[in-house]
Amino acid sequence: MEEQKVDIDSLCVAALRSLVIDVINKANSGHPGMALDAAPMMYALYRDHLKADPEHPDWINRDRLVYSAGHPSALIYSLLHLSGYSLSLEDLQRFRQLHSLTPGHPEVTLTRGIDATAGPLGQGIGQAVGMAIAEKAVSAQYPEGSRLLDHYTYCLCGDGCLEEGISQEAISLAGHLKLNKLILLYDENGSTLDGPTSNSLTESVKLRFLAEEWNVLEVSSGNDVEAISKAIGEAKQSALYPTVIIVHTTIGYGSAKQGTHATHGAPLGEEDGRHAKDVYGFHYPDWTVPEEVYAHFKETFASRGKEAYEAYQNESDAYEAEHPEDYARFANAMSRNLDPYIQNLSFEEKKEASRASSGRLLSDYFNAIPFLFGGSADVAASVKTGVKGAVDFSATHPEGRNVNWGIREFGMACACNGILLHGGLVPYAGCFLIFADYLKPAIRMAAMEELPMIYLFSHDSLAVGEDGTTHQPIEQLSMLRTIPGVKVIRPADSYETSLAYQAALSSKKNPTCLILTRQALPMLPVKDPKGVEKGAYFVKKFEKEDGEILATGSEVSLALESSALLEEKGLRLSVVSLPCLENFDACTEDYRKSILSSPYEKRVSLEMGSTALWGKYAANRIGVDAFGTSGKAEDVLSEYGFTPEKVAEKIAQMLK
Amino acid sequence: MEEQKVDIDSLCVAALRSLVIDVINKANSGHPGMALDAAPMMYALYRDHLKADPEHPDWINRDRLVYSAGHPSALIYSLLHLSGYSLSLEDLQRFRQLHSLTPGHPEVTLTRGIDATAGPLGQGIGQAVGMAIAEKAVSAQYPEGSRLLDHYTYCLCGDGCLEEGISQEAISLAGHLKLNKLILLYDENGSTLDGPTSNSLTESVKLRFLAEEWNVLEVSSGNDVEAISKAIGEAKQSALYPTVIIVHTTIGYGSAKQGTHATHGAPLGEEDGRHAKDVYGFHYPDWTVPEEVYAHFKETFASRGKEAYEAYQNESDAYEAEHPEDYARFANAMSRNLDPYIQNLSFEEKKEASRASSGRLLSDYFNAIPFLFGGSADVAASVKTGVKGAVDFSATHPEGRNVNWGIREFGMACACNGILLHGGLVPYAGCFLIFADYLKPAIRMAAMEELPMIYLFSHDSLAVGEDGTTHQPIEQLSMLRTIPGVKVIRPADSYETSLAYQAALSSKKNPTCLILTRQALPMLPVKDPKGVEKGAYFVKKFEKEDGEILATGSEVSLALESSALLEEKGLRLSVVSLPCLENFDACTEDYRKSILSSPYEKRVSLEMGSTALWGKYAANRIGVDAFGTSGKAEDVLSEYGFTPEKVAEKIAQMLK
Repeated sequence: MEEQKVDIDSLCVAALRSLVIDVINKANSGHPGMALDAAPMMYALYRDHLKADPEHPDWINRDRLVYSAGHPSALIYSLLHLSGYSLSLEDLQRFRQLHSLTPGHPEVTLTRGIDATAGPLGQGIGQAVGMAIAEKAVSAQYPEGSRLLDHYTYCLCGDGCLEEGISQEAISLAGHLKLNKLILLYDENGSTLDGPTSNSLTESVKLRFLAEEWNVLEVSSGNDVEAISKAIGEAKQSALYPTVIIVHTTIGYGSAKQGTHATHGAPLGEEDGRHAKDVYGFHYPDWTVPEEVYAHFKETFASRGKEAYEAYQNESDAYEAEHPEDYARFANAMSRNLDPYIQNLSFEEKKEASRASSGRLLSDYFNAIPFLFGGSADVAASVKTGVKGAVDFSATHPEGRNVNWGIREFGMACACNGILLHGGLVPYAGCFLIFADYLKPAIRMAAMEELPMIYLFSHDSLAVGEDGTTHQPIEQLSMLRTIPGVKVIRPADSYETSLAYQAALSSKKNPTCLILTRQALPMLPVKDPKGVEKGAYFVKKFEKEDGEILATGSEVSLALESSALLEEKGLRLSVVSLPCLENFDACTEDYRKSILSSPYEKRVSLEMGSTALWGKYAANRIGVDAFGTSGKAEDVLSEYGFTPEKVAEKIAQMLK
Repeated sequence: MEEQKVDIDSLCVAALRSLVIDVINKANSGHPGMALDAAPMMYALYRDHLKADPEHPDWINRDRLVYSAGHPSALIYSLLHLSGYSLSLEDLQRFRQLHSLTPGHPEVTLTRGIDATAGPLGQGIGQAVGMAIAEKAVSAQYPEGSRLLDHYTYCLCGDGCLEEGISQEAISLAGHLKLNKLILLYDENGSTLDGPTSNSLTESVKLRFLAEEWNVLEVSSGNDVEAISKAIGEAKQSALYPTVIIVHTTIGYGSAKQGTHATHGAPLGEEDGRHAKDVYGFHYPDWTVPEEVYAHFKETFASRGKEAYEAYQNESDAYEAEHPEDYARFANAMSRNLDPYIQNLSFEEKKEASRASSGRLLSDYFNAIPFLFGGSADVAASVKTGVKGAVDFSATHPEGRNVNWGIREFGMACACNGILLHGGLVPYAGCFLIFADYLKPAIRMAAMEELPMIYLFSHDSLAVGEDGTTHQPIEQLSMLRTIPGVKVIRPADSYETSLAYQAALSSKKNPTCLILTRQALPMLPVKDPKGVEKGAYFVKKFEKEDGEILATGSEVSLALESSALLEEKGLRLSVVSLPCLENFDACTEDYRKSILSSPYEKRVSLEMGSTALWGKYAANRIGVDAFGTSGKAEDVLSEYGFTPEKVAEKIAQMLK
């Protein structure tokens, strides 16, 4: 019996590796190195541990599995195929081809069985941390919550992921939060793209993880399926610490060039591929999967998953009967249905900083929506994310919903992506707009993954004042607006801020960046309930106009003041508030033309930031295309020309 | 005598802290918490160790001192004042005011005695690593090089810096490279802006640094000047490892609110300020510095520095006499004088990928300029930074000039900023354009610091192909172009690539991003030696034109092909290559008008990336405002409409 077991296991691993070789050789593109060496560990995980049902890939209580390294995608797709997901051999044969389900790096929006998009190294660990946070937080928010949610989060990474700084933020956070159901498989294959890992890294990974209060296990041979399985089993028992399993492997195992970086990113080709299959003892024609391999995946992974899925359905039915209200809330949380909670909210509009309006709105929504969850990167008091009375999410208070992310902007944003991929919470994350630079790669990822993430970016302009050059955003608005799929909303008063919240919370697929001021904003004279949805509307309109000012955020009031000054001199400048350029661009041509009512040469954009993006709306642009400076806010604004008088003068000149 | 010493030391520390309080109180803005607690450690450093001459703040052999945490700027400026730098009490009284020398966060371009701009947390550690690399590398490149360069690099950081992921990349790199003359002072004050550090961090800093092969020292009381001085002295003896000194302090020491985050970012005010001064036993009127304090700084720090400076002048004169050629090379290196080395270079222009042209140019320049120094973030073979025969820079080969930065884009870029701040090397750094996202904050820093950094970004468009969505840049070009001071050059053929190198190497203050293709580029029909300098020039011009196409990089050839197709249909489209928009924008209005020869409505931009920025040049824009996709390059390009036929058709439609 044991003999038999060894045989079928060897056959399965060999079949998996052979498939990897075929997939990459046919595409003549891909990364065999890690795909080959990590095959046994992934097999061990699927055979004995991973809880998932290929018939129901979106099952909410499945174990999550994040491939932080996305380049061994040939392995990932081969695993999905062998283990019964709806990915055919034909799909594998279209590896890395246009419109296939098997792109170069796995994409969560494209392929069933993929839990997170991978590619930019390190972010997967951050996303896995977010999933483990979600599991802990959501299950703690319901009585007997583990009946609703109780799973592990696995993550496969390589040295590339661990060299990236983001991994440190993620690891540190996971240790701090004692995410004991997070299990990281570190494929230590001793090689990077350029050469041996030792060329660029001299690190005790073990000590590094111990420093962050992780449980550290080690497996000396990456081909030892049983040892790997045993380690994973041990990791699952960890009651207090997340676990890293360091698995020592041989890159490109089986290739004549195994153990060298030559196997990292180049296909093995036919000859070396045959050589490798000989090493595996796999003597079948290309693209052959022996029936007993499919059968074995089915008997182990798939049947265990099916059973677990069915048991869960019974259990959740029972739970629903016992706790109908809690279950309804859970169902709302998992489907991001906020409607039941936000019907009776009111909001007092007034002159104040938009970060203050945001703080009040957030507080109201937080108290209304039981699964709103978030915090800031150590700037809670400044960005106004500190909700009064909110409990901090922590190892001892997993039911808490305020998160102290620490000084880890990028880690925060990656974790939030993981939380959204997981479901059950509506996360938000706050920091200063200038530090959008630090987390930008995660915003891009959110947009690619079609996640309705909510970012709160305050201190949005030169008006930051004293903190100076390093803290004054200039090009950040442009940076965010050019990321495909991202909506950037820069409200001009507290009413627009309330509309911005509605838009952000009702978004289904688009990340939203709320751009907030540090300084007070007067109320605009006009309220347009569709102002944010349409992205632009008039706040002052002359029937016969000499031009128009297009402005956002704090500059809308400035535009109005300037327009008033110009009016005294006989120049009639209409004023448009454009809280969301992306929404405006998506409006009908008729609407856009009605807003851009003056000729191109007679339009002036006014925004305290890079003017670059405004060229498509206006021939005249007032903004800031240099770095800021330290000083009292009003001095800085005057220095850069942002007073009603200076703006009016500039506009008069421009329209001459 | 010992008694006396204790007294004057206490007085100096008290005077320093009192000045910090006065500075922040007067400005009614600033961060007293760390400024107060770190005063004794900085005093110990200045009194006994720091080698610098306030009369010659730019002395090339001074110790470097990086304040990675820039918010204790009141301490930094107070130190500069007390120790004899040209920063007066009046300057301190203008703290955080417009046009002062004492901005909210220290800026290297503004204030003498500041070695690096600070503010964005964590980057200072990365810059310090770069300075320590420069010290090691430069001194190894000359016979008896330690006679020319032999100094320490100190860095002050707080928990904020260490929580940021960039710190891990920097620390890991420093340990790997055995930068034993790097000394990091970690002010462990137990508090972040939002509350106790334990709210967000549970880490053994000691283990973490040991994991990266650092020497770890610890001082239990941040007020113990002698213990701190002793630890620094011990650190200086480290022959193999960089050293971190963990100094346990009390945030806001002296304040009634000491030990709490309430002292982090809010001025103490008059009452608490007086209370603190009582605690220090400092009974002088505000803004008073006892003469003996100035005298003591002079007798210790300044006179030691003066002596060292003079000794160095004698020594370097002697060196110059003994090694005239080496010294001349050293002088050229320190002043970035490349002229003697690049006169006789030739370059064969041909059809090839611009990354390949870049590789050949880099190789030639590398062999010609003895202090060119750089590498890539583990993509040497792809970005073509691997110079044949170049020695890897490492602990055992500090004379090597090829750097394996590892998978640490941000760490690489921060270190390069430090190298440039230090002087003596001309660094370059390469990675895929998509990962410009990871190092963007360091590019911004380079621009703020006015550093002529050279970034090589290859794989610049959808033409990346198979690697897919996560690896195909869309908005990255726009992102880079909107950073003030950055020049983005996207060459269209190998000739433009050679011009781009000339521009990058001759830049004095502006960082340059070279944007390079993976795929081959044909030679353009026109060669304009001023093409990059002017930023735009015609590669095809009709006297009577129906419109013009504005294109960059790989799209210039595509524009020419499309124009040819349109010509067959009787439409005359001129074609402009715009390798550098920033240079073009800086041209005379006449020149700009001569290039933008068609009316706005008749101009079409063509670039495989975000169209957002092109609105200021053209009413019609062909680009990509969505994410890419995985597939063979030619399939992807066709899918997104980048074939001569599809572009021609689109243009014909647009100009109808």
